[in-house]
Amino acid sequence: MRILVVGAAGTIGSEICNALEHHDLIRAGRNGLDVSVDNTSEQSIKEMYEKIGKVDAVINAAGGANFASITELTPALNERGILSKLKGQINLVLLGHNYVNDGGSFTLTTGVMMDDPIRMGASAAMANGGVKAFVKAAAIEMPRGIRINSVSPNIVQESWDRLGSYFVGFTPVPASRVALAYKKSVEGAQTGQNYEVY
Amino acid sequence: MRILVVGAAGTIGSEICNALEHHDLIRAGRNGLDVSVDNTSEQSIKEMYEKIGKVDAVINAAGGANFASITELTPALNERGILSKLKGQINLVLLGHNYVNDGGSFTLTTGVMMDDPIRMGASAAMANGGVKAFVKAAAIEMPRGIRINSVSPNIVQESWDRLGSYFVGFTPVPASRVALAYKKSVEGAQTGQNYEVY
Repeated sequence: MRILVVGAAGTIGSEICNALEHHDLIRAGRNGLDVSVDNTSEQSIKEMYEKIGKVDAVINAAGGANFASITELTPALNERGILSKLKGQINLVLLGHNYVNDGGSFTLTTGVMMDDPIRMGASAAMANGGVKAFVKAAAIEMPRGIRINSVSPNIVQESWDRLGSYFVGFTPVPASRVALAYKKSVEGAQTGQNYEVY
Repeated sequence: MRILVVGAAGTIGSEICNALEHHDLIRAGRNGLDVSVDNTSEQSIKEMYEKIGKVDAVINAAGGANFASITELTPALNERGILSKLKGQINLVLLGHNYVNDGGSFTLTTGVMMDDPIRMGASAAMANGGVKAFVKAAAIEMPRGIRINSVSPNIVQESWDRLGSYFVGFTPVPASRVALAYKKSVEGAQTGQNYEVY
């Protein structure tokens, strides 16, 4: 399969590429690799699809949100989660489904904070919950047999030193285990699912 | 209690006001009533709170999203759900918590389409899922004992003639039954919940 991986250079993205290395991978991200894309820009997403042409699967492992406590979270700080983690992912679908071959798939990324809240995580949780619900709803009317799922990773072991203090009492999982859920989404046959890797 | 009801003139909003008529209600909406507000404008939300001052509870029953099939849903069409049903509700919390008395509450509105998808409902589902996850996450760090919940209504009987064709096979519920969930949120003691009235 020809597979576009957005956020391919990230902690999880690089493990996704390892898990799917037997496919023809197009590694996308903010800084080059095979193709560069800024997922907060509709124009940049459109240009990426025009450059790469048809694919069998689109995986997104990119997207950020600001961490802030609810009393410090302003509409402006919340906007990063809206633009990047929420709309950035959804626009990959809305602007990209015509570039996905019949029977292909989209796989987006949510995250454990929507199910098991942490301090300062409300903006990320909002974006995750929006993506999960979008995926479930979009799945029932995707055209030409195209499937759509999301993967909800726990905090990963590789990020524990940097982020573990936000995730008190969590058991981190290896990014390689998270990557298997993307492989299941791409090579399996399910649709409308949110694979929790907790 | 002094309670702000945003969207008070709507089908559900007016039943919320009936269920809470023994309280001191401030009826807000796009066209006046006690105070006018456009929930897609941060400035308008700020001005509303400045006008009304402190309250014990904020209820939101306003917010819209465009209905469109996934192949017709553009980023531009999706923006109404982002601005109104998602950010409109979240900004009522981010810009309003300082106006809510100790031990007060917020009650937002999600909807059945995030759990039981319908055609053309992906944008609304996205907004609903974002609000649900935000509420769950925000609840663990709301200041001064302020609680936050959401209510997820099924399609209501009062809207069945107009919208029933979108909700094939659903069993509509009376808006008065939906209103009881808002009453539970305001007068009860739970937080971080999404009350499904299906």
